[in-house]
Formats: sequence, C-alpha cells, structure tokens
Amino acid sequence: MPSPSQYLAARHRRVCEQLDALTVDALIVTHPPNVCYLSNHMGTAGILVLTPGAVHLLVDFRYTEAVRRRQDSDARCPGLRVWDVPASYDEALVDCLAELGISRAGFEASHLTVSRHDWLRRTIAARKLDIELRATERVVERARLVKDEYEQAVLREAAARLTEVADAAFAAVRRGEQEREVAAAIEMALRRAGFDRMAFDTIVASGPHAALPHHRAGDRRLEGGDLVVLDFGGVLDGYCCDLSRTVSVGPAGSDAARVYAAVREAQQAAIDAVRPGVTASDVDAAARAVLGSHGLGETFGHGTGHGLGLEVHEEPRLGRRRDEGPPPERLASGMVFTIEPGAYIAGWGGVRIEDDVLVTDQGCELLTAVTRELIAVGR
Amino acid sequence: MPSPSQYLAARHRRVCEQLDALTVDALIVTHPPNVCYLSNHMGTAGILVLTPGAVHLLVDFRYTEAVRRRQDSDARCPGLRVWDVPASYDEALVDCLAELGISRAGFEASHLTVSRHDWLRRTIAARKLDIELRATERVVERARLVKDEYEQAVLREAAARLTEVADAAFAAVRRGEQEREVAAAIEMALRRAGFDRMAFDTIVASGPHAALPHHRAGDRRLEGGDLVVLDFGGVLDGYCCDLSRTVSVGPAGSDAARVYAAVREAQQAAIDAVRPGVTASDVDAAARAVLGSHGLGETFGHGTGHGLGLEVHEEPRLGRRRDEGPPPERLASGMVFTIEPGAYIAGWGGVRIEDDVLVTDQGCELLTAVTRELIAVGR
Repeated sequence: MPSPSQYLAARHRRVCEQLDALTVDALIVTHPPNVCYLSNHMGTAGILVLTPGAVHLLVDFRYTEAVRRRQDSDARCPGLRVWDVPASYDEALVDCLAELGISRAGFEASHLTVSRHDWLRRTIAARKLDIELRATERVVERARLVKDEYEQAVLREAAARLTEVADAAFAAVRRGEQEREVAAAIEMALRRAGFDRMAFDTIVASGPHAALPHHRAGDRRLEGGDLVVLDFGGVLDGYCCDLSRTVSVGPAGSDAARVYAAVREAQQAAIDAVRPGVTASDVDAAARAVLGSHGLGETFGHGTGHGLGLEVHEEPRLGRRRDEGPPPERLASGMVFTIEPGAYIAGWGGVRIEDDVLVTDQGCELLTAVTRELIAVGR
Repeated sequence: MPSPSQYLAARHRRVCEQLDALTVDALIVTHPPNVCYLSNHMGTAGILVLTPGAVHLLVDFRYTEAVRRRQDSDARCPGLRVWDVPASYDEALVDCLAELGISRAGFEASHLTVSRHDWLRRTIAARKLDIELRATERVVERARLVKDEYEQAVLREAAARLTEVADAAFAAVRRGEQEREVAAAIEMALRRAGFDRMAFDTIVASGPHAALPHHRAGDRRLEGGDLVVLDFGGVLDGYCCDLSRTVSVGPAGSDAARVYAAVREAQQAAIDAVRPGVTASDVDAAARAVLGSHGLGETFGHGTGHGLGLEVHEEPRLGRRRDEGPPPERLASGMVFTIEPGAYIAGWGGVRIEDDVLVTDQGCELLTAVTRELIAVGR
C-alpha cells in the first residue's frame, strides 16, 4: 500500500490552487476530517491553517506527543509547523494569523459556528489587527470528493473486511436473541477484523422495527419470519465503510420476498447507472423508478446513497434532483459512495440493501463483497 | 423510576422563563442533545422551536414513525406539534416560523454555523418575512446543568452498571493481548450491561501509549510491568457515564506505584472539595495542588473533569481558573460530572483515575463504584 504521507503534498497543492480564486492568503480549517485530510492529524481537536508552502497545525497538550510520533513515521505531513495551544484554540488561532501576517483568511462557513465567528471578529478588531475573515464553502470537501490512490486502497481494504463481519452478523441472528445481542456480536467482529472503531451506531432493526430507517438496536427478541435490517460499518486508518443487509429469520414470507426482490432490483439499477459524467441524482432516479414500478415509491423516503471517506456521510449525496440550488454534482472516477435503496412499511417492517462502490472510468467497482440475495438465517 | 415524560413540562417552563429576558418569542433549538432534552426526540436530525405553551418538532421521514410511537409511550412530550420536513430542514424552519407568526426568534449561536445563519437571513429577507434572528448562548445548556430527578436516576443506574464492565475489562487485560482485543471485550461488556452504545471511543492505552491522554486502542500487545489506562463509558436511555482505571500488568514497579498514589491522592482531594457553592475551578485546583506537591504538576495537562448528561462532555467544565471571561461557574446540588486527574510522562506512560459524581446538599455522591486502588491483573 502507498504511504499515507506521500499524497499529502498533492492535497495541499490541490487546495492551495483554490486560494487565489477565493482571494485569501490562508485557509483556516476547523472541521476535523478536513484537518485530517491535510495533515493526517486525527484528533477531535486541532485547527489547521494552510498557506502556500506551509501547513500550520494548532494542537493542545493532549496531542503534541502523538503529532511528534507521527512526524517520525511514514504518515508525516510535509511542511508541517506545530503551534502549541496553551488555553483557547481561538486565541491561539488569532495569534497564529497575526504572527504569519495573514491579511485575508478564508474560514469554513459550514463548520464555524456563529459564536466562534463573532468572537474571532471582535478579538481581531479589539487587537487592531488587519485580518479580514472571508467565508468559504466546500474548499477541502471538493478536494476530498475524488479519492487518491492511497484513499482508494484503504477504502477497498476496509470494505473487503466487512465480509467476515457480515458472516458473524448472519451467525448471530437467531430466533429469541435480542437486537442488542446481535449488535454486540457485530461490533466484536468489527474489532476482530481490525477496525479501529465503529463508523456509526450499529443498527439491528427486526420485525416492525425494520420500518424505522434509523432504529438502532434494542431489547426486542427476534421471531421466526422477521425481516432484520443489519447496518454496520467500521473505521480503518480513518476511513469509513458501511454495509446493510436484510435477512429473514427462518423462511421468508411471500410479501417479504416480493419487497426484497424489488429493493434488490432497484439497487442493481442504481449500480448499473453509475459511471463518470452522470449526476448523483440520475443514480437516485434509477433506483426510485424501479421501486415506483413495483408500487413501492412511497416507501423509499431517504436518498439512494452518500459518499464515504474520512466521514461516514460525506459528498456526493445521491438524492432526488432539486429544482433550485447549484447544478447537480457529476460523478467522476475515484469517487466512493454507498448505494442503499430501501422500502419501509409502517407496522410491517422494511428492507435495505447497501453496498459501497468506487467510480471507475467504465462504470463502478463494487467494494463490498457479500451476497445480495435474501438469505434465511437462524433456527 | 419516574417516567421520562413527567419532567418535560418543567423543563419547558424553565427554558421559556428565559425567553422574555432574551426578548424573543421563540427559541430555535438545533443542537441534538438540546432537542432531546426538551422533547425526548433522540434523532441525529430534528429542529425544535419552543414557544410559550408549545413544542414544535420538525423531523423528516426517517423519524416520523419513531416520534408517533414515542407519543404513545410514557416518554411522550407534552404540547408537542410535529412538522413534517419534506426536503430541507432550514426551509421547513422558515415555513414554521412564518406560519406561527414569530417576529423575534432566538437561535443557538454556539451550534448554528455561519452558513446556515446566512442562508436563513437571506431567505427570510427574500420572502419579505418580518422575522428577526437573535443570537442566544447556553439557554438550554443552563437548564441542563442541574439534573432533575429522572436524569439523576438514569445517571445513577448507568454509572452503577459500569462495575460489571470494569470487572470484564480487568479480566481482559492479559500479557500478550492486543489493546484492541481488550477494547472489544470492554465494548461487548457494555452491550451486555444493557447500554445502547458506547459514549465515546474506548481507550486502552498501554505502556508508553498511556502517556497519550487521547490514545484509542491499537495493535500493541500488553507486556509485564505495563500500566494500562482503560477509559470507557456507555449511553443508557440517552445519558452518558464515563470511567477510567489504570491497572498494572503483573506487579507494579515502584515508579508506577508512586505516580499512581499521587494521582489517587489528587482525585480524593478533588472529590473532597466538591460541594454546592464552590467553583468548578476550586475542584480543579485541589487536584492540581496535590500533583504539584509530588512534582507532577507539569504532567497533568488537561482539566480535572467535565459534566455528564445527554453529552459525554458538557458543562460544567472543571479546569484552571481563567483571568478573563465570565465569572467562574459555581457548583450546585444536582450537577453530575467526572473527576479524573492524571499524570502523563512521555516515553514512560501514564495514570488516570476517573469517577462520576453527583453534587448533593452536603458534598457529593460517588456514582461509580469500582475499586480505586492500583490493582495488578493478568498473568
């Protein structure tokens, strides 16, 4: 696998190229996944200031030792300068901007709160500094949309490891077992597969609970004939994967088989629609059309997928085309996202089938490799 | 245990009493824990608009069924009106404010991003609506500082359940085991103890890793003589608990015993300092003074504790007294927080001991019940 360090310089260049057009001298990065993308720093705290030629990382006591170690490893960040944060991050940020002589600093308007922005403005004014804060949108996110070779390798490996987790999940689904026990078995398997942590709260939604797309896992005991939606994912070296399967406890009833087949067909239609140049909403529409043709259009209330990377929900979003707003995002080779149509019927239950794909020059590569047929499990 | 519903009306009243002083007709609540506090809605999405006499909850398709079920349970929210969000939350919010005839709406400036705030302002202006957005700070957070009887009962139960998890953690610490395997055993035990999920990423920091306060759990195998910091917590009915213990793999060396004893003494001094009326920084200072007297002042770089509730890190913060800023927070009966001094020595390792306390009229009640002496585990 390529070293995580060697791609950082290219990422810095890609983001820095945008600074001129934004008429800023530096970009203040406060969103932790964006900080990580540009520095390999994975802390929950940390501010990064990117200037042409240098990466300034502001971290507090808790992270200085970890940053020092990383700089001695093959994950080192080129051009890094570490700034110690003795007390407040935002005070340290103003000090840093002042010392660097930045006069126009871009900030991430989708991540900075109104409070912090006001505090920074007031403090800059009170200290009579000549620093103008300019709102920017999606600067690092745009760079993150297309995964580089290192990211693709990690995402491919993460998705592949879900196969053994799915096997453990299927083995744990048994009549009489509680949802939360199945979730515990899945999480144990995620750890065993080498994931650093869960990418999100594991979902085990059985019987009528399967009608709730965001049900987690509770006390309900599985019954024969239940459909059970299993949705789980792990984080490997910072990158997220995400898989859903719906299984039947014992033989599936005819309604269950019919709904499952429709969702399965919708997912295949969406996968077949993926290639560079089409819009994310074209892929969504492909899934939606199939479900509509089976009379299940109303039961599919969420989008068809979401990007995967340093965040488990990132761009691109595969949802309905909207009339207003910016022009639709076009898919490009190197993007990675989920394809996860579903059908949710209140009081009855639901089905979701979710895989992770990488857009290629020709179409897409399925990164997850778990049977997509309806299987009957448990005794 | 009291029902979660019966406390909601009092919470609504407590927050509504502040609206007059803030000269707003309604409070827009966008921070998910604050939404939950006022409605029992636990989704990751959802906006709440609180007006005198009514609680307006804006949720999308994914949550409508869960909200409907909750309103039929003993967790129902009095005065609730549900608004369907067909597409964008912020569009639905403007529609809701317009329909309710709100002219001055407070928003949570510490949680709303600059982007969303700008969009709301522009949209209100474009639609020629007479709605003024006013920044507010800590309105719901202030109410959440003192836990009501229901919250205290849940937090007490959550902390008590950590005893069996700690037993499982100690049993899992063995020479030759990987940190990640110990973390998996802890997480399995958290599930078995009935927690809905982890409150944060489990920390298993062994040997030199124990010098990194925010190390998670990696591939390192435990060795004889290691100190191992175990830090874990779970979420029970939405409320978080948090425990750290440091154990020795086999007999502890004399340095380890000395550092442990100092941290143990610092923690006791902090616990003894807790009572209504003292400031949070007084408690921090008590721990810091003890560590200083042992020559370990420089090794304790974080605060002594943090509030626990719907968030695993909330107010009050027990840190150093700061010269600038608002007057220090005074402790009051009903507050719940951690007390977790530590010592971190680069290249050597570290110690942290963390318990959860509830402030009482006389002092505090220790909610966690796990031995605080240095124990040698493993073989």
